[in-house]
Amino acid sequence: MKHLQPLYGHSLALLTDLYQLTMAYGYWKTGNPHQEVIFSLFFRKPPYQGGYTITAGLASALELVEQLRFTAEDVAYLATINGNDGKPLFEKGFLDYLYELRFTCDIDAMPEGTIVFPHEPLLRVQGELLQCQLLETALLTLLNYQTLVATKATRVCQAAQGDMVLEFGLRRAQGIDGGLSASRAAYIGGCTGTSNVLAGKLFDMPVKGTHAHSWVMVFPNELTAFQTYANVLPNNCIFLVDTYDTLQGVQHAIEVGQSLRQQGHEMVGIRLDSGDLCELSRQARQQLDQAGFTDALIVASNDLDEYAIQSLKQQGAAINAWGIGTKLVTSYDEPALGGVYKLTAIKNQENCWEYRIKVSEQSIKTTNPGILQVRRFYNDQGFFLGDMLYDILQPPSGNPVLVNINDTQKLLKISPEVLYEDLLIPVMRQGKTLANQPKSLLDIRQYLQQQLQRYPDNFKRLENPDIYPVSLEGSVFLHKEHLINQTKQSKTRYQM
Amino acid sequence: MKHLQPLYGHSLALLTDLYQLTMAYGYWKTGNPHQEVIFSLFFRKPPYQGGYTITAGLASALELVEQLRFTAEDVAYLATINGNDGKPLFEKGFLDYLYELRFTCDIDAMPEGTIVFPHEPLLRVQGELLQCQLLETALLTLLNYQTLVATKATRVCQAAQGDMVLEFGLRRAQGIDGGLSASRAAYIGGCTGTSNVLAGKLFDMPVKGTHAHSWVMVFPNELTAFQTYANVLPNNCIFLVDTYDTLQGVQHAIEVGQSLRQQGHEMVGIRLDSGDLCELSRQARQQLDQAGFTDALIVASNDLDEYAIQSLKQQGAAINAWGIGTKLVTSYDEPALGGVYKLTAIKNQENCWEYRIKVSEQSIKTTNPGILQVRRFYNDQGFFLGDMLYDILQPPSGNPVLVNINDTQKLLKISPEVLYEDLLIPVMRQGKTLANQPKSLLDIRQYLQQQLQRYPDNFKRLENPDIYPVSLEGSVFLHKEHLINQTKQSKTRYQM
Repeated sequence: MKHLQPLYGHSLALLTDLYQLTMAYGYWKTGNPHQEVIFSLFFRKPPYQGGYTITAGLASALELVEQLRFTAEDVAYLATINGNDGKPLFEKGFLDYLYELRFTCDIDAMPEGTIVFPHEPLLRVQGELLQCQLLETALLTLLNYQTLVATKATRVCQAAQGDMVLEFGLRRAQGIDGGLSASRAAYIGGCTGTSNVLAGKLFDMPVKGTHAHSWVMVFPNELTAFQTYANVLPNNCIFLVDTYDTLQGVQHAIEVGQSLRQQGHEMVGIRLDSGDLCELSRQARQQLDQAGFTDALIVASNDLDEYAIQSLKQQGAAINAWGIGTKLVTSYDEPALGGVYKLTAIKNQENCWEYRIKVSEQSIKTTNPGILQVRRFYNDQGFFLGDMLYDILQPPSGNPVLVNINDTQKLLKISPEVLYEDLLIPVMRQGKTLANQPKSLLDIRQYLQQQLQRYPDNFKRLENPDIYPVSLEGSVFLHKEHLINQTKQSKTRYQM
Repeated sequence: MKHLQPLYGHSLALLTDLYQLTMAYGYWKTGNPHQEVIFSLFFRKPPYQGGYTITAGLASALELVEQLRFTAEDVAYLATINGNDGKPLFEKGFLDYLYELRFTCDIDAMPEGTIVFPHEPLLRVQGELLQCQLLETALLTLLNYQTLVATKATRVCQAAQGDMVLEFGLRRAQGIDGGLSASRAAYIGGCTGTSNVLAGKLFDMPVKGTHAHSWVMVFPNELTAFQTYANVLPNNCIFLVDTYDTLQGVQHAIEVGQSLRQQGHEMVGIRLDSGDLCELSRQARQQLDQAGFTDALIVASNDLDEYAIQSLKQQGAAINAWGIGTKLVTSYDEPALGGVYKLTAIKNQENCWEYRIKVSEQSIKTTNPGILQVRRFYNDQGFFLGDMLYDILQPPSGNPVLVNINDTQKLLKISPEVLYEDLLIPVMRQGKTLANQPKSLLDIRQYLQQQLQRYPDNFKRLENPDIYPVSLEGSVFLHKEHLINQTKQSKTRYQM
């Protein structure tokens, strides 16, 4: 499952914001780089005002942390960065320290393909302050984007209702790795394959593709173009029929499909890339069926997303495979997930955890303190009931009081017999990735599909879903309130 | 200026859509891989309904083409891809051909940092059909995204009216390279620097950064946090003042700034990252000025873009430096440029160019045929007058007739004495990048700034700009009309 190491020849230790390094320098210089801390990675709003978010990118993140080294070239570069007086920011002792640094953090995380909700840590890092700080930016880059695309892909596949969905987005992706990691996340979310050949190679996932308009334009006419293609690649024929006149194109595809059939090959289908996809697909279906090509796929592409698919289906389009590009890989209607990485606890000199909170005028931005775990409750049929954030140092017992995170007036009671699962599992210890990771992307896909079946439909609606209940366990809620009050009183020291 | 080669250890030959390879196979198999063709890369709509678009990404694209090789590992992977009958798509002879392939294309392109308009080729490839086809996806990926971000950055800097703008977006970028190439393009567009350290190293551009909220939260109180930072990094002090209470934070910064000053250092400024940025900045300015820190910067960040900057300036905010993250690097309000790469001419067996056109029901999607060059006309003061697409095989002479591309009823006359410049210049010959490339990103930045000064303000407005006149030279227009009519009549063969 490794892909960063095969792809990048360059050390990625500098793939970070400069302020992580200046802070690391500060911790080193003031003698507390080894202080033990907890950081939580979470987001505050679900993308697309949707009812679910799908975690992805963990394998990439773990790979990055495991291989992180500051090379001689990296530290030589850092030595050239100057402050506002023209003198170097960093002294040599610190750069030597970075050069020798090996990451020894522990990470607990939700497995990729988990349904996750706002405020739930999808990853928790425990380790030395300096190290944990240095990981922030890269962890966010890798998890934010893949989580966003996996969520989008899940929504697109939901709208497609079991039809094949292919990811075609590389040419409009935000950079090389934008394309590559989008292909990976889209496959996790349920896409059947990608057009991106390098993604196929790096991630061992299916690649698909036939021909473009330019193929048709190279030949004297469309029929010749299709015939030539069929002669060369009889086992890969999805003809793009809209270079000149779509329905005439369908007729040409049928002609070539018939001669393919005589040679023992079956045309896979046709592709529509412009015009009124609903009307054209129905007419094309009629033409294909009349000619005996009832199994031929009708693939549609052209700036589609979950809303366009839903609308085309409602209008009765005869499309049964979807090529999704730009709007999937750039997550066009919401191109960033606002994941953050926040300090939630720090060990003091007496070896006790002090909890930390970032207060904000916007209460949604006030963080939850502690060493947080997410517990998911299930009903007898295995359907999701609700989630609870609790502190692993004060695990709930008996009948925990649950305070709804979106409405603190709502208290939920959970009977002690109810089934549950803790979602964050150990994935890295002492800087080494544990062997409990999924063996393949297929495993992750299946895990997601199993969860989606257990997640009730009212929360899954693409628009205006019900809000799934996420609660703070009573003592986390009380800790948080206490810290907020302390902040209001003293505005200086915020701990307990 | 190389960065792909240092960054990627892996061959990028497979960074393409599978259909490029199946088409290449078709051309190889049917004996015309060497047929000479022209492809043009252009877009149809300016991003953000804006008045300009800024080219970027060419250096990355040229580097990719120049180093493109199918490795043994690449072709071994391609040998594993099967068709719908379970048999391999590609035969061994073709894979051997790919392994031996060296790219020998010629490329003409607009230099990076050029102001470009819809329908104008920003890059034109001439070469063997198979090779040109294989380049499509990667060229689009690299140029689409960097052009988009360079344009966004130019708009943000325009709104900032000369204030310093820093790019802070890595954590929300779409993948690793999404972050890296965004930093590069943002610098071209006018940003002063980036927080992204690896971008600083790879692209030789300034990196900036001080500390995060977590720094403040680690210490017993904010004042101690600022003091500690100032002790360690006295030459890099921009204090983030909103961890607990913003105006108290400003007071703490002033205290530390005063002791810094006693030691011969100057506090650079403060940063606001939440709350009412307008009101807080004015109060902070007052506090700073009263304390004698009239030169201290007030940096603002928090989901800003050109519209937010414009609005804050109109409201009288006292902000004089801007940290722009998510909305810049993801180009949040329009996260993809719809660049396309279209076949426009092909040489026949008699060694004559046949022109090609892709017809569409939407006339904006009908391509312009020929071997196109873009000529820009200037008035006596050096201001842009308008652009003309002409065919290099039929260069305009005397008084060319110009047909406005957005309104074919509008004919423009240009007097023969008017100053002009042809924008596409040779950048690659026989697969080798020419030595006429900019030496540094600084050169590209300066080139862009020179052009912006010559581009009239009415076209530059961030909202509702006037539409800059782009015309087809008369004979290009007539060729196009002729090909469209031929298509309508025959729907089979479209050439002249």
